[in-house]
Amino acid sequence: MTATRGDTRTRLLNTALGLFTVHGVEGTSLQMIADELGVTKAAVYYHFRTKDEITEAVAEPALRELSAILDHAATIRRHGVRVDYVLDGLVDLVVRNRILVAVFCSDPGIARAIERSLHGEENVMTRLPAMLVPPDADEAAVVSAHVALAGVALAGGSPALMTMDDERLRRHLSEAGRRLLGRPRRRESLS
Amino acid sequence: MTATRGDTRTRLLNTALGLFTVHGVEGTSLQMIADELGVTKAAVYYHFRTKDEITEAVAEPALRELSAILDHAATIRRHGVRVDYVLDGLVDLVVRNRILVAVFCSDPGIARAIERSLHGEENVMTRLPAMLVPPDADEAAVVSAHVALAGVALAGGSPALMTMDDERLRRHLSEAGRRLLGRPRRRESLS
Repeated sequence: MTATRGDTRTRLLNTALGLFTVHGVEGTSLQMIADELGVTKAAVYYHFRTKDEITEAVAEPALRELSAILDHAATIRRHGVRVDYVLDGLVDLVVRNRILVAVFCSDPGIARAIERSLHGEENVMTRLPAMLVPPDADEAAVVSAHVALAGVALAGGSPALMTMDDERLRRHLSEAGRRLLGRPRRRESLS
Repeated sequence: MTATRGDTRTRLLNTALGLFTVHGVEGTSLQMIADELGVTKAAVYYHFRTKDEITEAVAEPALRELSAILDHAATIRRHGVRVDYVLDGLVDLVVRNRILVAVFCSDPGIARAIERSLHGEENVMTRLPAMLVPPDADEAAVVSAHVALAGVALAGGSPALMTMDDERLRRHLSEAGRRLLGRPRRRESLS
C-alpha cells in the first residue's frame, strides 16, 4: 500500500508541474489536477490539502538538493574548489530542473511557496552568494557573483534555450559562470 | 488643471510603487493607495479604474525606455558598438529603477502587467538577446547573452546590493556584462 501511495503522490506532482507549465500555478486548480490524473478531487485531498502544499512539494526536492550542496560546500576549505563545486552543482540542478525553473521564473505561486519553505531554515538565497566570494572579495566580485547566480538560474530556465540539449546547456552555463567568478576555463570547453 | 492632474497621477504612481515594495502588488489595494495619498478612493478611480492599470502605469515608463533603446540599437551597424549601447542602456535603466526591478522580481502582479503591456508590440524580451549576439554567434555566445541579461536585471534589483551606490553598481554590472559578452574592459574600470 505504501508503494502505491508513493507512486500516486509522484504522479500527482508530475501532473501538477505539467499543468503549471501550461496554465501557471495560479491558473491550475486541484480539480484540474484530479481530472488530468483521472481521479476524484477527494483522492487529491488525500495527499495534499491545498494547492500551496502541492506547489511546495513540487519545488521541495530541488531546494533540498541545493541546500545539501551548500552544506557540503561549507566544508570545503579552498576557495577555488568550493566555487567549482557550488557552480557545477547549481548548473546541474538548474539544467535537470529546467521546466521547474521556467515555471518558477514566470509564476509567483512557486516563488511564494519557495520563500515559505525556505523560511525557518537558514535562507538558501543568502547562503548561495556567500559560498562564491572569498571573505576578502571586493565589491566587483560580489556583484559578479550575484550576476552569475541570477544569470545561470534564469537563463537555465529560459524558454529560448529550452531546445538546447542538457549537456551543451550545462557546459555553456558553467563557462559563463566561471568567467564571472574568475575561474579558469575548463580544458574540455576549450576548442 | 492639466498640471494638477499630471501631478496627482505621478504622486499616485509613486505612492503605489512604495506600497508595492512593502506589501507586494497583490497585498496592495486601491483603498490603501487612497489612504496613503490622503484622498478618497473616488479620486484614485478618476485616474485608474483597476489596480492592474496602476501596475501597468508603474512599469510603463521603464518599458518604454527599454523599447526605445532597442529601436535605436537596431540602427547601429557595428556589433561591438551596438552591444555597448544596449548593455549601457540596460544597466542604467535597471540601476535607476532598482526598486521597480526588485518589486518586479519578487511579485507576479508586475510581471503579469508587463507581459500584458508587452503583448501587441514586438516582444522586448525577444528583441533584447538578439541585439547582443551577432547573427553568426555560436551557441556559447547565445547562452552567455542570456546569462548577461538575466543576471544584470536580477542582480540589479537584488536586495543584497540595495545599499551600493548607483554609480558603483552601474560600473560593476556593466563590467560583469562586458565579460560575458566578450567586450574589452573599460579604461575607467581598470585599477
